[in-house]
Amino acid sequence: MGVKLGILGLGTVGTGTVQLLQDAVGRHPLLQEIEIYRVGVRSPNKSRDVQLQPEVITTDLESIVNDPAVDIVVEVMGGLEPARSLILQAINNGKHVVTANKAAIARFGAEIFTAANQAGVYVMLEAAVGGGIPVIQPLKQALSVNRLHTVTGIVNGTTNYILTRMQTEGSDFGDVLADAQRLGYAEADPTADVDGLDAGDKIAILASLAFDGRINLEDVYCEGIRQVSKTDIAYAEKLGFVIKLLAIAKNQAQDATKLSVRVHPTFVPKTHPLASINGVYNAILVEGEPIGQVMFFGPGAGAGATASAVTSDILSLVAALKSNTTAPNPLLTCRHEEYSQVAPISDLLTRFYARFLTKDQAGVIGQLGTCFGNHGVSIESIVQTGFQGELVEIVVVTHDVREGEFRQALAEIQNLPAIDSIPSILRVL
Amino acid sequence: MGVKLGILGLGTVGTGTVQLLQDAVGRHPLLQEIEIYRVGVRSPNKSRDVQLQPEVITTDLESIVNDPAVDIVVEVMGGLEPARSLILQAINNGKHVVTANKAAIARFGAEIFTAANQAGVYVMLEAAVGGGIPVIQPLKQALSVNRLHTVTGIVNGTTNYILTRMQTEGSDFGDVLADAQRLGYAEADPTADVDGLDAGDKIAILASLAFDGRINLEDVYCEGIRQVSKTDIAYAEKLGFVIKLLAIAKNQAQDATKLSVRVHPTFVPKTHPLASINGVYNAILVEGEPIGQVMFFGPGAGAGATASAVTSDILSLVAALKSNTTAPNPLLTCRHEEYSQVAPISDLLTRFYARFLTKDQAGVIGQLGTCFGNHGVSIESIVQTGFQGELVEIVVVTHDVREGEFRQALAEIQNLPAIDSIPSILRVL
Ligand SMILES: NC(=O)c1ccc[n+]([C@@H]2O[C@H](COP(=O)([O-])OP(=O)(O)OC[C@H]3O[C@@H](n4cnc5c(N)ncnc54)[C@H](OP(=O)(O)O)[C@@H]3O)[C@@H](O)[C@H]2O)c1
Ligand SMILES: NC(=O)c1ccc[n+]([C@@H]2O[C@H](COP(=O)([O-])OP(=O)(O)OC[C@H]3O[C@@H](n4cnc5c(N)ncnc54)[C@H](OP(=O)(O)O)[C@@H]3O)[C@@H](O)[C@H]2O)c1
Repeated sequence: MGVKLGILGLGTVGTGTVQLLQDAVGRHPLLQEIEIYRVGVRSPNKSRDVQLQPEVITTDLESIVNDPAVDIVVEVMGGLEPARSLILQAINNGKHVVTANKAAIARFGAEIFTAANQAGVYVMLEAAVGGGIPVIQPLKQALSVNRLHTVTGIVNGTTNYILTRMQTEGSDFGDVLADAQRLGYAEADPTADVDGLDAGDKIAILASLAFDGRINLEDVYCEGIRQVSKTDIAYAEKLGFVIKLLAIAKNQAQDATKLSVRVHPTFVPKTHPLASINGVYNAILVEGEPIGQVMFFGPGAGAGATASAVTSDILSLVAALKSNTTAPNPLLTCRHEEYSQVAPISDLLTRFYARFLTKDQAGVIGQLGTCFGNHGVSIESIVQTGFQGELVEIVVVTHDVREGEFRQALAEIQNLPAIDSIPSILRVL
Repeated sequence: MGVKLGILGLGTVGTGTVQLLQDAVGRHPLLQEIEIYRVGVRSPNKSRDVQLQPEVITTDLESIVNDPAVDIVVEVMGGLEPARSLILQAINNGKHVVTANKAAIARFGAEIFTAANQAGVYVMLEAAVGGGIPVIQPLKQALSVNRLHTVTGIVNGTTNYILTRMQTEGSDFGDVLADAQRLGYAEADPTADVDGLDAGDKIAILASLAFDGRINLEDVYCEGIRQVSKTDIAYAEKLGFVIKLLAIAKNQAQDATKLSVRVHPTFVPKTHPLASINGVYNAILVEGEPIGQVMFFGPGAGAGATASAVTSDILSLVAALKSNTTAPNPLLTCRHEEYSQVAPISDLLTRFYARFLTKDQAGVIGQLGTCFGNHGVSIESIVQTGFQGELVEIVVVTHDVREGEFRQALAEIQNLPAIDSIPSILRVL
């Protein structure tokens, strides 16, 4: 009895998956029972890196999700529509689904999982976060016996590559981005990556699994790395930090009914496990009780790594089909229907690093200190670090402070006559 | 319908597991359907850190594995016997088993898994390797779609703690061991840890999962850290390495029919992902095609972390029981019955670091070089590093060489009149 796949998309991930399945010897023996039955593409005449019988390839993707012979639909086409509709159609036709589409899951997860639970099918998404790293299954299964309190990830390879190069070369964001685009590490339109939106989709997914509740994507605060300068990277270095784009989901101790879910460039202490994750690698640190800290590290993208994750989901489904369950396996279904409450970023309790350019006057540091003090912002250090032309550069690091209060202090500081500008404000882990 | 556990042992891990299960709110909801039905101990009157009804506790462990009401037996008593017999009895009575006992699995895995497959039950062992880190399940499931070629682990927390302290403090092995024993990081009889035997059990288990074949424990080469000196750690540092006790299983490219499975202190380049794993933490790096490198990092021992792993196995079994399978799930059974062939250590191809003490004579370096050359050992560097009293210290680093040839060269060198001694020989990753 072969299990028949209908694959939607034959791009980077689709091709990698087909290559893996066509070369099954030496892998899990169940893979040899899988048949690549239909593959949907847009351009039927494009030359492909894999050989498939002509009758396998079609441009009629609906015919795949409606084909009664198809057991599992593998959505690796990307985008929001028609991916969403095709996934829903497949589910309504009683087919299990594997998807790598973080954008669609982060936006339509509620609709998709509700439909899947009603239809009694599974929707698997290991490849949606962390590329080849097994992190979705551990969160749904092994780690779910813990009370998790924090998930912190470097989940976007492009931005980590850019920040790593800025750090090692002392280069500026714009130059490294241009080079990364030339080398294929960043897309022509880099918005989703560099503005933190891709990481936002991923942390929404991780947060929903770690904290057992759906996440409204609009509640996720996303700040990208465009404003990170080589000056800040150099200061971070001096202070014992590196700057990483972190995606963080936290069950805030002070108000356990609301989560904090956010993406922003962050000062990470050099001794932190995530500080040494460099280049295109991804890593996800999960913290909870009683386990403590566990971290998963690996390639966050690429044809092979992502194909590994997609195929591992296919394998789980084939095994489930083989074991003839008469009731759904509760570790494969989605078990939350409520939305989690997410606190606004102004409620965040965090340390800050801020860099000011001021006029060269006596008493500026005192004015800054007073203004922060008036808003209850407690300062860890305030240092005049040098000159930029006529202006004095001052770097402030705070203790933990409510972001709202800190912003109010900044608004007031901005109006001080001595202040020229505030080129950088970064959160400190 | 509750699922009834019979737990064998209420020590560190047993107590942690009972605490976790008794405090289930906020964890996976399936845990609330589990009943701690019987717990077996040796000393019924010992005071315990958990509250259990008196009728739950028994010293008659056979009565637990023979009780028809028990669904799952959780073996956390340790040791070889009666653990082995009780596990086999539980299996023969049709009960699923969870065990944290690497020693028993590494020695009796063949017998245990054969019995389990015959009885149609599952034996789960997440806690046997890497404490709380989910690594067994990923190897059996997600990563099994890859052709794996190497598993490299820091899987013994005690030795990693000792080596880390030797490195940061510049102390000698004996002093740090004594202090580690005082602090509870090393046992009164530290043999299993410091001689690499515990790591040997664990790499045998990981190798069997990664390479789909049983491993004969006698084939695993084990060398511990007793002979690692602070002098070598200092040289490692200078050369850009740290010394770690690595457990390595490798599908050797030059002879794919034989594996290399071994434990030994190793020069690890500082840039390697395992180089920065310090203290009692464990990490397992898995490499394969097409995934590349993935690494799992976390607490390798301790009541809470190990309880997390034990409970995650219990959860998997409860989910399997809930989904009413009529056929075993092929991802939960053990699917290999053949033994893997393991190459002798003399066949290993590796780089070496060796430190010599010689008489202060002209031409010693030349003699060493000639002797290595005669045995086909190609030298990367040979440096006279200083004096120890009357003797000259010389450090050699080789290119890749068959261990057998290297040992022959050393045997000859040992007989040179100019050679006083060879205090250290370490493999280089
Ligand atoms: N690339 C990675 O490393 C990576 C990693 C993790 C997750 N993902 C996710 O995996 C998914 C696929 O990514 P990818 O990089 O493989 O994308 P890709 O290279 O752009 O491939 C997309 C494929 O889908 C087909 N397709 C797209 N829209 C279609 C439509 N409307 N009708 C028919 N066919 C259509 C394309 O057909 P043609 O070939 O005919 O153009 C192409 O084969 C995305 O959700 C992405 O976020 C990718
Ligand atoms: N400790 C860790 O961090 C850790 C981590 C990973 C795996 N493991 C593994 O987990 C297992 C348990 O380790 P542990 O540290 O929890 O051991 P432990 O603290 O020594 O506890 C052993 C328990 O088993 C009971 N027991 C032992 N032999 C018995 C017998 N013949 N009859 C009845 N009861 C018996 C003891 O009873 P009494 O209480 O009455 O003495 C005790 O409750 C071992 O296989 C170990 O390798 C431990």
